[in-house]
Amino acid sequence: MQTELSRRLGIEHAVFGFTPFPAVAAAISRAGGLGVLGAVRYTDPGDLARDLDWMDAHTGGRPYGLDVVMPAKKVEGVTEADVEAMIPEGHRRFVRETLARHGVPELAAGDRRGWRITGWMEEVARAQLDTAFGHPLALLANALGPPPADVVQRAHAHGVLVAALAGSARHAARHADAGIDVVVAQGYEAGGHTGEIATMVLTPEVVRAVGPLPVLAAGGIGSGEQIAAALALGAQGVWIGSLWLTTEEADLGSPALTAKLLAAGSGDTVRSRALTGKPARQLRTAWTEAWDDPAGPGTLPMPLQGLLVAEALTRIQKYEAGPLLGTPVGQIVGSMNTRRGVQAVFDDLTRDFERAVARLNGIAGDGQGPPGDRVRGAAPKAGADAGPGPD
Amino acid sequence: MQTELSRRLGIEHAVFGFTPFPAVAAAISRAGGLGVLGAVRYTDPGDLARDLDWMDAHTGGRPYGLDVVMPAKKVEGVTEADVEAMIPEGHRRFVRETLARHGVPELAAGDRRGWRITGWMEEVARAQLDTAFGHPLALLANALGPPPADVVQRAHAHGVLVAALAGSARHAARHADAGIDVVVAQGYEAGGHTGEIATMVLTPEVVRAVGPLPVLAAGGIGSGEQIAAALALGAQGVWIGSLWLTTEEADLGSPALTAKLLAAGSGDTVRSRALTGKPARQLRTAWTEAWDDPAGPGTLPMPLQGLLVAEALTRIQKYEAGPLLGTPVGQIVGSMNTRRGVQAVFDDLTRDFERAVARLNGIAGDGQGPPGDRVRGAAPKAGADAGPGPD
Repeated sequence: MQTELSRRLGIEHAVFGFTPFPAVAAAISRAGGLGVLGAVRYTDPGDLARDLDWMDAHTGGRPYGLDVVMPAKKVEGVTEADVEAMIPEGHRRFVRETLARHGVPELAAGDRRGWRITGWMEEVARAQLDTAFGHPLALLANALGPPPADVVQRAHAHGVLVAALAGSARHAARHADAGIDVVVAQGYEAGGHTGEIATMVLTPEVVRAVGPLPVLAAGGIGSGEQIAAALALGAQGVWIGSLWLTTEEADLGSPALTAKLLAAGSGDTVRSRALTGKPARQLRTAWTEAWDDPAGPGTLPMPLQGLLVAEALTRIQKYEAGPLLGTPVGQIVGSMNTRRGVQAVFDDLTRDFERAVARLNGIAGDGQGPPGDRVRGAAPKAGADAGPGPD
Repeated sequence: MQTELSRRLGIEHAVFGFTPFPAVAAAISRAGGLGVLGAVRYTDPGDLARDLDWMDAHTGGRPYGLDVVMPAKKVEGVTEADVEAMIPEGHRRFVRETLARHGVPELAAGDRRGWRITGWMEEVARAQLDTAFGHPLALLANALGPPPADVVQRAHAHGVLVAALAGSARHAARHADAGIDVVVAQGYEAGGHTGEIATMVLTPEVVRAVGPLPVLAAGGIGSGEQIAAALALGAQGVWIGSLWLTTEEADLGSPALTAKLLAAGSGDTVRSRALTGKPARQLRTAWTEAWDDPAGPGTLPMPLQGLLVAEALTRIQKYEAGPLLGTPVGQIVGSMNTRRGVQAVFDDLTRDFERAVARLNGIAGDGQGPPGDRVRGAAPKAGADAGPGPD
């Protein structure tokens, strides 16, 4: 499964696997894709350095990538305390009451309070990059559009390709103008932050908007058939995130959450602002329903919402508060029904991709036949002569 | 572009084109697809008989289909007047005020009042079928799930295949149990009534749910690349509706509406209850915004909403009331940028389909190489041994 982009990166399959888990990212790279480690959960650069060292030791020299969350526009001089102060007390009360209604205990004294906001702030992302550029990165992806110009330059100086996520052709064109190398077109059905345009429509639109820049299709892709579909739409590869959440290498920290993912149908996700303040697809839970309820206080804008709910999400996860327990995940969750290793998942992807292509060849081939067999209707007349209207 | 289903129907390309315009339906059948005429606008069986006669004279013996709107559950003894009486006066006032605010004139004395509700009622659909079964139909499609059992039997007795639209795998399985022959899996990005699941996810789900029953993919399909994608997902054909709205053979009755469609981007549609009371994708207009505004009265359930707005929509269309002017259409409207004949559209579809398949073959082929070149990573260890978690 090779495209110009996969050859440029020296990977066997044009499958880009986004994951917050180093063990998953390394396994994806070993299997011939490009594992892309999500950095947002690393608030301490020391932790990231340790995990990247581990990646280097477990990818057998295969390329891998890093995904940061870095706003193109800088927010100067705002501290976490400043943001905290902007959260209305009514919203804090709603958090407390919702957790109390479901009997979710408080955290213990020594517990971590969750990833909080810091992973979203530019200084943290820059510290992550200082660490990361010391490792043999192949791709730097940014979830919030193009990173700042100096970061793009720095990546290029290290021979690292820069990718940026886009939910519309207009955003993608703007990203391309910022000098990035790869656009990830993230469709409506994707887990995490998404726009309204479905992958089937978005992918070719973005390809037209930024070509010859390579485009990765994201959203709705969790099988070899879906990879074939995405590549038929003009993508040079696929960006897959949800599928790895139920692999054996993933450590969600909650068996109940894994069980919930394995049981969920494609209709059990919702695009909600409950997580960050911007629409992000995730499991539909009593928690998202509370925030999306018109009778409730509603969500706050990014980054307030993320800061407001960070500790609550840690509590929900720690105590596995069933009805509230969720995670960002795309509509393909409906097909994530067994727990398997990354390599087994990859084997299915490549086998089913080949089968889908073979099936398509059968469909295309049968339609061709000898020229004499091809039937063509007379060109229809246009306008008023063409026949009766609907009335 | 031949599948088992297209061969069974004796058509050259597995492209099913839904349209309310006989001239478009006939042109689609002449071009080698299956034109499917929407019957909902025919409140007078005489009009339908006239147009089906015309179809017979203009399809050159090629098969065509009919799409009716027939609820599986019968509503006994309810007249249009009964339904009218259920509409609150506040909603009628909101219609009047919205039209007045945009300066939309009243209809003239002799004007038709719009298709109203009658096309949605079973007795009308049954009268349509009495007419239709006298014509050489190949396919009977129903927009509201399976038609009643006796209608399915009657279709089969005439050698007519029965298709039903579904927006979820669960609905599709129920349709299959009702003895239909083809499921149309209608994705979120489609024009008209749609569910929440995008075509990329819905198509393979429905194929798994009802196989070996053939599935047509609907929603997001307006190019040869998108056809290739849909067929890669396991569909035996595609169901395309929006694409024909801007063909030369289509007579929307409003040049301003055609211009609006040609100019619209993929982000200019909305899934709104404004049209019928159930979520249907359509152009986003001042009309849909008024109904979707939380400060407004909100929409009524089906069939009240359709009856409430029928005359208003006729006025909006007759006077081409720009900001209010809309139509059901899918997200592919963003790629409908030129007015062309159906045959020219079809030529592009088939050419681009073949190109997409050729491109996929290049991608699949390059990945194969001689066995010695294939790189495989060691199988990763599972569980706690697999490496550090994210913390």
